[in-house]
Amino acid sequence: MQFGNQLPQGVADLYSNDYERKEYVIDQINQTTKLYGFKPIQTPTFEYYDLFMNMPGTMDTDQMIKLIDHDGKILVLRPDATIPIARMVANSKDPVTFEKLSYVTNIFRMQNGDSDVFSRSFTQLGVECFGQKDAFIDVEMIALAIEALKAVGLERFQIDLGQAKFYQSLMNEVDLPQHVQREILSKLEQKNEYELSLILNKYNVNERVTNVLLKLANLFGTPRTVIQRAKDLALTDEMLEAVQELEWTVNQLADLGMAPFISVDLGLVNHLNYYTGVMFQGYVHGFGRSVIQGGRYDHLTEEFGLKIDAIGFGVYIDQLMDVLKQQDVALASEELQLSIVSRNRTDAFKIAQKLREEGFIVDLFSTENRPILIDLDNEKLIKGENEERFQSTKDLIDKVGRLYGKS
Amino acid sequence: MQFGNQLPQGVADLYSNDYERKEYVIDQINQTTKLYGFKPIQTPTFEYYDLFMNMPGTMDTDQMIKLIDHDGKILVLRPDATIPIARMVANSKDPVTFEKLSYVTNIFRMQNGDSDVFSRSFTQLGVECFGQKDAFIDVEMIALAIEALKAVGLERFQIDLGQAKFYQSLMNEVDLPQHVQREILSKLEQKNEYELSLILNKYNVNERVTNVLLKLANLFGTPRTVIQRAKDLALTDEMLEAVQELEWTVNQLADLGMAPFISVDLGLVNHLNYYTGVMFQGYVHGFGRSVIQGGRYDHLTEEFGLKIDAIGFGVYIDQLMDVLKQQDVALASEELQLSIVSRNRTDAFKIAQKLREEGFIVDLFSTENRPILIDLDNEKLIKGENEERFQSTKDLIDKVGRLYGKS
Repeated sequence: MQFGNQLPQGVADLYSNDYERKEYVIDQINQTTKLYGFKPIQTPTFEYYDLFMNMPGTMDTDQMIKLIDHDGKILVLRPDATIPIARMVANSKDPVTFEKLSYVTNIFRMQNGDSDVFSRSFTQLGVECFGQKDAFIDVEMIALAIEALKAVGLERFQIDLGQAKFYQSLMNEVDLPQHVQREILSKLEQKNEYELSLILNKYNVNERVTNVLLKLANLFGTPRTVIQRAKDLALTDEMLEAVQELEWTVNQLADLGMAPFISVDLGLVNHLNYYTGVMFQGYVHGFGRSVIQGGRYDHLTEEFGLKIDAIGFGVYIDQLMDVLKQQDVALASEELQLSIVSRNRTDAFKIAQKLREEGFIVDLFSTENRPILIDLDNEKLIKGENEERFQSTKDLIDKVGRLYGKS
Repeated sequence: MQFGNQLPQGVADLYSNDYERKEYVIDQINQTTKLYGFKPIQTPTFEYYDLFMNMPGTMDTDQMIKLIDHDGKILVLRPDATIPIARMVANSKDPVTFEKLSYVTNIFRMQNGDSDVFSRSFTQLGVECFGQKDAFIDVEMIALAIEALKAVGLERFQIDLGQAKFYQSLMNEVDLPQHVQREILSKLEQKNEYELSLILNKYNVNERVTNVLLKLANLFGTPRTVIQRAKDLALTDEMLEAVQELEWTVNQLADLGMAPFISVDLGLVNHLNYYTGVMFQGYVHGFGRSVIQGGRYDHLTEEFGLKIDAIGFGVYIDQLMDVLKQQDVALASEELQLSIVSRNRTDAFKIAQKLREEGFIVDLFSTENRPILIDLDNEKLIKGENEERFQSTKDLIDKVGRLYGKS
């Protein structure tokens, strides 16, 4: 055959083993977010391109997957999870005062030259909390990120905390054109101090600001140390306040016993046009890419005509699956399955129905991979070398239950 | 604001109430298919257009949503669930003898002029059983379709059974060009006897075949009656065998107590190039559109170089949601939520964690829609007009448990 034997770049099939693991991971995190009062919602796969085109520097429009609609309008496949939810909340018929929303969704990007099988379509799970400016909400969201990673069985991970306002008020001290600001951000993200110093020199950035910017790339590590260094570097009251806010959040998390998972990184500057306060990224020991990204974004809904504070984070499920595979974290155990063989299929089906009502998985057509066999004609329950007879349906159900360790 | 206040045609947001109902419905059906031994899998959102282009008459290529890839190849957004799964099974590294797979997925179609908010992207849940030619598998699949509808709380519904071979062997009696066959099928699907008779007349279809075709549109109803009429109409041994097969399936289902849900429709001719044996559609009383569609398709994997028998069905989840709303079927009851108020947020969070460990949903930031309030400062548990004091965290958890009816 010519066709059908290949898949497009950046996508993959998920066979039952991998997919069951993925469902289990999603389920565990969903159960955790639900206990915190988050409610699941869903936005559509298609949105108008215009919705994302003018958004404050969240993503490259070249990477969006676009379609032309019948009426000539440009549609995109959901390139981001938070913006559509902000649109949805801002357009809500009822006035929104406080809303805790969760989602599991596919994100689509037209990335090229990447060998990652999930580069074009990946699964993100996330939570967004709208309304009520309360500093403790930041604490709880970071705690929830930690609980989410614990829920899937991870032990050695770290949440890096940053503060958008520290960098933003530093940049208010100089008057640089947009494209220069973007260049500076990009070098900082790469932690490329050498090229950063060339740019700062080229645009005559003053010495005090240059000094802080060059130190920013290395302003990460143990909270106490980094926070003290950041306080010393603060050029303005606003910068000092930003550090003090971060210090408060870190202390609150320590009071909750979360200190082992917390680190501070004031050089965290991804999506800085978008975040307005605390920012955080989750890393798992031995795995280079972040599995969680989040922060406070109090201005986003303003783009849709509603002023409401917000904080959220997303979990990159496919990357988390890679981590779990790499770390050999034991996930849900394979469930036992029963097989029934009988000359009389109707009887077999009726017994199967009774067993299914008790929650047992039963197949009538194959004994493959099904370690427990019910031989209905000879009234035998067979597991490997062991056989035992049963007297009635009730007796059979009791005996199967005992094999499963149910009673 | 200009943008963001509208969504493209054929898609919609799902707010928490509707989405929770949808998740509940999917979950109920998934639990049912799991007990029958089906394993969840996932195919990607993008596939090559070529995969669907040459498939036997399953869908209109004009309706597929297409993208041009970097390398000039045409991609489509998954326009069908079964074909990609057949591709996946046929390309499996291990030899496939028996495989029971389930999926929940979005299907994408560029339908125009339709006011349905889910016309372009809808959710389908389905099962596919590959391998082992065994007539009882048909019986079990139809029984599973019935169990799936029961699992979401429906009582008054009907599965219409047809048989692809009855029509196919009838058409073997005449030699008509493809386009005429398509016209005949289309008129039959519409149950438009008048235009059907004009076509049959125009192409000089012989009297015996014309007679059967004109009666086919009305060959539906109570199994016993319809099967007898179909036997009388059978022109060939093959047609008679097709009816006898159907009769056997109907009798088996009756033996399993499923007769109240079964009806026969030999005029069922949708996707007839695709099905090779039993075909079925599920209808809910008072709702015009089918919520389930399935059948046996023994030739599909041949397109991918593997000969393996198969039967499957899909559940149209969004249509099922409409039915359930229309019928006011009670779904999962709203879960109670707790709210904690306290001057000390750290203490409140620690108590919240203990309650969450017990499975209670707790929010620290709003008392809205949360009927049970824990006033930590005054050690009071408040529900509506009732207040009671608690002495310790353990005492609180016990008392909350009693309010939830847990102990």
